[in-house]
Amino acid sequence: MPESNELTKPSPSRLVDVDGLARALSAFARERNWEQFHSPKNLVMALTGEVGELSELFQWMTEADSRVACSDPQRAQAVGDELADVLLYLVRLADVLGVDLNAAAVHKLETNAANYPVAKARGSSKKYTEI
Amino acid sequence: MPESNELTKPSPSRLVDVDGLARALSAFARERNWEQFHSPKNLVMALTGEVGELSELFQWMTEADSRVACSDPQRAQAVGDELADVLLYLVRLADVLGVDLNAAAVHKLETNAANYPVAKARGSSKKYTEI
Amino acid sequence: MPESNELTKPSPSRLVDVDGLARALSAFARERNWEQFHSPKNLVMALTGEVGELSELFQWMTEADSRVACSDPQRAQAVGDELADVLLYLVRLADVLGVDLNAAAVHKLETNAANYPVAKARGSSKKYTEI
Amino acid sequence: MPESNELTKPSPSRLVDVDGLARALSAFARERNWEQFHSPKNLVMALTGEVGELSELFQWMTEADSRVACSDPQRAQAVGDELADVLLYLVRLADVLGVDLNAAAVHKLETNAANYPVAKARGSSKKYTEI
Repeated sequence: MPESNELTKPSPSRLVDVDGLARALSAFARERNWEQFHSPKNLVMALTGEVGELSELFQWMTEADSRVACSDPQRAQAVGDELADVLLYLVRLADVLGVDLNAAAVHKLETNAANYPVAKARGSSKKYTEI
Repeated sequence: MPESNELTKPSPSRLVDVDGLARALSAFARERNWEQFHSPKNLVMALTGEVGELSELFQWMTEADSRVACSDPQRAQAVGDELADVLLYLVRLADVLGVDLNAAAVHKLETNAANYPVAKARGSSKKYTEI
Repeated sequence: MPESNELTKPSPSRLVDVDGLARALSAFARERNWEQFHSPKNLVMALTGEVGELSELFQWMTEADSRVACSDPQRAQAVGDELADVLLYLVRLADVLGVDLNAAAVHKLETNAANYPVAKARGSSKKYTEI
Repeated sequence: MPESNELTKPSPSRLVDVDGLARALSAFARERNWEQFHSPKNLVMALTGEVGELSELFQWMTEADSRVACSDPQRAQAVGDELADVLLYLVRLADVLGVDLNAAAVHKLETNAANYPVAKARGSSKKYTEI
């Protein structure tokens, strides 16, 4: 029965839904007359800045410490804020570019599955061009 | 009537839904025994790499050119792929950290609204600490 | 006469000299027992953080504004500080990795000259793989 | 005796000398009519791209592995190339901005020494605002 299949297995075309955030950010920018600043080029730089801040939170942690970074409530808040900043600029950037992030993610997952077959990629951190 | 309100105004608690993608990425990593590599520290570095690739696509464009970057189908594909790469690592990172990206985005939008009141921020690209 | 040649044409083996800074940073780290934190991996993340801060200074500027960014003394100071931060981590990183930055720069200039012959690259911002 | 002093203690005003590289890069750009592309804003994005490539080399390494990354000749070459790319864009950026990297580095070292006194910073990776 295809119907039950559709219920139990999520459609690959619904991996993410960022429409609500895209609309909220668009309204936020429009109200402040910020559309003039939100060129894709500028937004890529703003995204870079936020990834830099995220990187600063983790730069001196060991990998082991990074795995429990959010066990401390204060740090969890800081990490969540930086992740949100990255997400906000990413969604805004995709929106002004007219890119459908869900379709892009679906396509990329398919590419990754083709590039990294389980048999070859298992337990290896090598790039697909090297496996 | 709260009901009609709920219909016309999207709840702020549903800005993004990335659960499907998070599950797909978790399964992808588990099948390949990649969980050992996916420490938050490593994933932040991988995210940095993808933002670098995105930056390379836009580095020599003028702002005006960047606004129409996706009018060329080949470049639209390249841009979509890089945006997807950023999204994939961001969602994976939030997942291994146990961060709820929707809650983090909601919180950040509230902070931004407080930091950038329309009356003060209108038409200005200054940081909130300077306005 | 090789002597006059040496006077008029700078030797390619002396493009940069960062030894003084490398020594100063090494002593700075040793005095503070920071060598434990200065793994190349961590230093790459610290470098990322500083490039992010640099990016934040320029993200909302037009290209034209960026060309005169240092005409304002206060901004010149901020820009100089961020450039220095990037330089410090880059030199420290090369030092702990045992990479000779001058030799690496000489080699890279030669590669670039081969990849971008004047006749083909003139006036074009395309990557060498596309020209 | 000032002479012996000059021999044993390097002058703080000569931490780095990047003039040769700056001149080489300026000539390289001028010959290719690339000055039009080399706005500081664009160069910051190019620098971001190179730091991203550097990050990709280290993203899946453990810290311990990163410390010996250059013991493998092929990887040493790849790492040296990426470090050189970062250096080239950094020096070019400082040059078009008119920033004296040596003076900026001297100033930053002084700031760091004031922010991180040995007694307080010893063995700690905390930011100066937290110690």
